[in-house]
Amino acid sequence: MSRADEFIDANRQYASQFTQGDLPMPPARQVAVVACMDARLDVYRLLGLGLGEAHVIRNAGGVVTDDVVRSLLISQRLLGTTEIVLIHHTDCGMWTFKDDAVKADIEKETGHRPAFALDAFDDPYADVRQSIRRLKAVPYLPNGEAISGFVYNVAHGTLEPVSEA
Amino acid sequence: MSRADEFIDANRQYASQFTQGDLPMPPARQVAVVACMDARLDVYRLLGLGLGEAHVIRNAGGVVTDDVVRSLLISQRLLGTTEIVLIHHTDCGMWTFKDDAVKADIEKETGHRPAFALDAFDDPYADVRQSIRRLKAVPYLPNGEAISGFVYNVAHGTLEPVSEA
Repeated sequence: MSRADEFIDANRQYASQFTQGDLPMPPARQVAVVACMDARLDVYRLLGLGLGEAHVIRNAGGVVTDDVVRSLLISQRLLGTTEIVLIHHTDCGMWTFKDDAVKADIEKETGHRPAFALDAFDDPYADVRQSIRRLKAVPYLPNGEAISGFVYNVAHGTLEPVSEA
Repeated sequence: MSRADEFIDANRQYASQFTQGDLPMPPARQVAVVACMDARLDVYRLLGLGLGEAHVIRNAGGVVTDDVVRSLLISQRLLGTTEIVLIHHTDCGMWTFKDDAVKADIEKETGHRPAFALDAFDDPYADVRQSIRRLKAVPYLPNGEAISGFVYNVAHGTLEPVSEA
């Protein structure tokens, strides 16, 4: 049985108890969260988010890429969010490799070398600051100044604010 | 009070009851989910996902971009996932605009035109198929064939499989 089949079964149960089918498209709390894809981050629970309250953007690392900027641009310009919250975390997979080595392996195996950065980093606190700097350099986010950054501790479930300095 | 402050308060409650601090980094169910950032998709609940079970990648639309390929590459090559599940949904913000018009507005207001696609689409079923085609064209995903696509219904909480044809 594939995971997709398991998800279909689990969703039947969810849908049978679903009662929040009348929520509007724009996030009620006017916030966009950018977090790592790590399986140990249940973003809705760890932030106390209810259904319909926040955009949730996730990728490897929670790093700010062009795709994150694209998503935030749509979030802010078309769907009214005014604040950005970044979440990196402890014990992140992004610390376990270097771009050059992984790309060389891929090229050796397949003949193809990805034309984009994998964007590995060593320090989640420094990378939250890097992500904030990247966002502040974007000239077309209407609310590009209201940004907070955190490191989530996967061992303790806690959220640690990252100062910008 | 900013949303970030509200999240800090909510997280104190979450952390005080947190008991799953010993989960490994690789997702237990070896699956990566790619879903839209829409606030009405609580991906863990609607798929019956437990903490530590799946990578969750989210962006505007749930479309396959270079950043999604980057995240899946890291997910599959470095963290052992072997299956991809794509989730688009009904009533999506991506149907409400056209790239050209939004980019022209941005250029008029700020002088800057984004150098990337916003990737608006009209039909979530067609765009799930487009996303599957994009993934299958990537030459360096070790498990790039095991892909399922769904459209989630935000009014009913249901998940509808999208056939590839």
